[in-house]
Amino acid sequence: MDIQSIIRKKRNRQELTNEEIRHFVSKFLREEITEGQAAALMSYIYINGLTADEILSLSKAMAESGDMIDLSDIAENVVDKHSTGGVGDKVTLLLLPILASLDIPMATIASRGYGITSAIIDKLDSIPDFKTDLTIEEFKHNLKANSVAVMNQGLNFAPVERKMYKLRNEIACENSLPIIAASLMSLKLATGSNKIVFDIACGKGTYIATNEEAKRLAKLLVKLGKSLDKEVACIITDMNQPLGYEVGHNLEIKEVIMALRGIISEDLGNVLEAVGSTMIALATDHKDLAENSKMIKEAIQSGKAFEKFKEMVAAQKGNTDYIDDPELLEKSKFIMPVLSTESGTVESIDADIVGSIATYLGAGRMKEEDKINRSAGITIKKKIGDTVMVGETLAYIHTDEEKKVSGTTQNLKDAFKITNKRINFKSRVLEIVN
Amino acid sequence: MDIQSIIRKKRNRQELTNEEIRHFVSKFLREEITEGQAAALMSYIYINGLTADEILSLSKAMAESGDMIDLSDIAENVVDKHSTGGVGDKVTLLLLPILASLDIPMATIASRGYGITSAIIDKLDSIPDFKTDLTIEEFKHNLKANSVAVMNQGLNFAPVERKMYKLRNEIACENSLPIIAASLMSLKLATGSNKIVFDIACGKGTYIATNEEAKRLAKLLVKLGKSLDKEVACIITDMNQPLGYEVGHNLEIKEVIMALRGIISEDLGNVLEAVGSTMIALATDHKDLAENSKMIKEAIQSGKAFEKFKEMVAAQKGNTDYIDDPELLEKSKFIMPVLSTESGTVESIDADIVGSIATYLGAGRMKEEDKINRSAGITIKKKIGDTVMVGETLAYIHTDEEKKVSGTTQNLKDAFKITNKRINFKSRVLEIVN
Repeated sequence: MDIQSIIRKKRNRQELTNEEIRHFVSKFLREEITEGQAAALMSYIYINGLTADEILSLSKAMAESGDMIDLSDIAENVVDKHSTGGVGDKVTLLLLPILASLDIPMATIASRGYGITSAIIDKLDSIPDFKTDLTIEEFKHNLKANSVAVMNQGLNFAPVERKMYKLRNEIACENSLPIIAASLMSLKLATGSNKIVFDIACGKGTYIATNEEAKRLAKLLVKLGKSLDKEVACIITDMNQPLGYEVGHNLEIKEVIMALRGIISEDLGNVLEAVGSTMIALATDHKDLAENSKMIKEAIQSGKAFEKFKEMVAAQKGNTDYIDDPELLEKSKFIMPVLSTESGTVESIDADIVGSIATYLGAGRMKEEDKINRSAGITIKKKIGDTVMVGETLAYIHTDEEKKVSGTTQNLKDAFKITNKRINFKSRVLEIVN
Repeated sequence: MDIQSIIRKKRNRQELTNEEIRHFVSKFLREEITEGQAAALMSYIYINGLTADEILSLSKAMAESGDMIDLSDIAENVVDKHSTGGVGDKVTLLLLPILASLDIPMATIASRGYGITSAIIDKLDSIPDFKTDLTIEEFKHNLKANSVAVMNQGLNFAPVERKMYKLRNEIACENSLPIIAASLMSLKLATGSNKIVFDIACGKGTYIATNEEAKRLAKLLVKLGKSLDKEVACIITDMNQPLGYEVGHNLEIKEVIMALRGIISEDLGNVLEAVGSTMIALATDHKDLAENSKMIKEAIQSGKAFEKFKEMVAAQKGNTDYIDDPELLEKSKFIMPVLSTESGTVESIDADIVGSIATYLGAGRMKEEDKINRSAGITIKKKIGDTVMVGETLAYIHTDEEKKVSGTTQNLKDAFKITNKRINFKSRVLEIVN
């Protein structure tokens, strides 16, 4: 078996065997094939796709490239949730304590990221001393004790997924649906959860361009879940504006804390309830999504979710003073308003532009080795449907470098589309596939 | 301009601009894009092809990645010849002195190779002290003085072509016709010759599988030549057996010397005359190919070609004692016969198997850094059309390692297809495209 034959086979639209896929994965992990060879194979996969069996083999091979956690001794059902990434997305951070406060164990292994959609581990790094590099024992202990645990993927879990993610970004292969499906599932296989909801954001500021693509990915994931004895549901959401008010690390942690105290933007609440109620339905006998949404609201209103968040932070050695008073989180030197030059109603906010500016401000990595500026980011003041007058603040730019304010103000203003029409709130949730 | 957009564009079957192609070539040369990015772009080119304009841009950009030689002050017409590679192919080595002896200047820049089709510079290395690392001044001086010069491509001429060649082999992209066309032409642009014949070998033991593919490549090259003010003709040849009697470095140099002394196998003579007569037609007023073939035979029979070969060797500091007595060339410790177990007529000899065995014996590189064993190789004793009896010698294995004899004998025997039918000599030349 040699890699050139495998490359040729996929180029010729032939199905790869389980052995061939394992050969590729293990050689790629150990760097016994070149980066070019991996890139060529992935490019042909991009063009010619993968069959259901190939995706299954790839997910398993990727999961088995690292440690695998067995959670069957924790509970019958352990839930997990994954977002394919959106600008300002902090839904996972909210669901961890909410579901745990409902005694539904939620186990998450996540990663640091790059590009405009930053990752959950990066965000948790904003809480001083919060430890995400757990051992499997610590992870399982926390999960058992508090019904919640979140751990950095690092190089222990599905390490080949990390390598592939980096290469995919370099070779513009980030939106290959079968590779995304296998990658997402490999991590869930490694984590050991058996009830999984994927939030697939599509549109600007995501790497899934259209609703149709999102639906295809959703179907791949549900089918793949069935083959792996995992119950999977996918929520397709529309990234028609950044999610919630804040984009940036400290800013988003602050928003999470505010949301757990009951102050939450309509669109964030909308996605939170859709994803959360589906997760409850998967993990329990409560199948009525509207009822489940109420449970989520109650978990917040009762203060139980907030307390669970503090418990989770404390269990992972984080400093809970910052949870009690998020104003302690470091702020940027310059927090400058972007003023509207038009009057009307916000019709849309280009999440791609907002994400790119936030990254430029330091709230995202362009390369794996880039350092994140924790306080940098953007606060959205006017969301879709809000009326705005000339001179009113659309958003704030947070940065430590004054020159970056003038360089981004006009662009950020241009991200807002203002109309004379009346705009009603439209659910971001386009569809649930399961 | 970023490489990801260029990759996406080619993936989406859009035409790349001249600027985009130059961007890729210069970034690839300077290693400012990753190997994976180059591999992805080449894979999408493999699938989606290149337009005539793209091939033109690529050839020029590759040529201009290194030194370019102006030969307009040498002669009105300078010929060059390139073979896409075949097992046992020594036609270029024969034509260099033959055409020069007819006062047709022939300038060749070639490379070291890897894979089963070894390259001309590697073969010339077998002549002790023969110097192929010439300066441009030495190259032009020799060409002016002797009408012949051959130089190593090295890193001076079309250096990006070398990098791309290596990557193409690694990613199974060696048979991408537009990339082959651009690569071949880039080297000819760098050399400065204006009348070029390409020998496109197809079939087993080559990387052009079919006659149809060869014809497509030929048409690409002729068209590309027109755009670049070069007159191009392509000879499509059938690699139905290794070319001539010898495969391996010292062995082939010896065969070249014998051929220049008039002892030449029918198939080698056939290709030599087809290519040579076409080259004469391109460079002179002698347009009758049959007449030109006679000129080639006379150049050999008169001894002029042999004398010119010695002149060329002397001009490039090679030891001419070895030309006068090729038996001085080092021989392998073991020269073992492969005996036929059948009687009949040789119908075909699988050049791919012969080439692979020769490489295994040390007469070819699997990786760029591999060292060549100069004496190793294979002597074919029975060619297509020859009758053979049980126990007669089909071929000899030349190796310094005894254990490699037993490991290859059966395989080499299997490369010979013996039939009871009568087999007539069939010209290897399938078509001339110009």
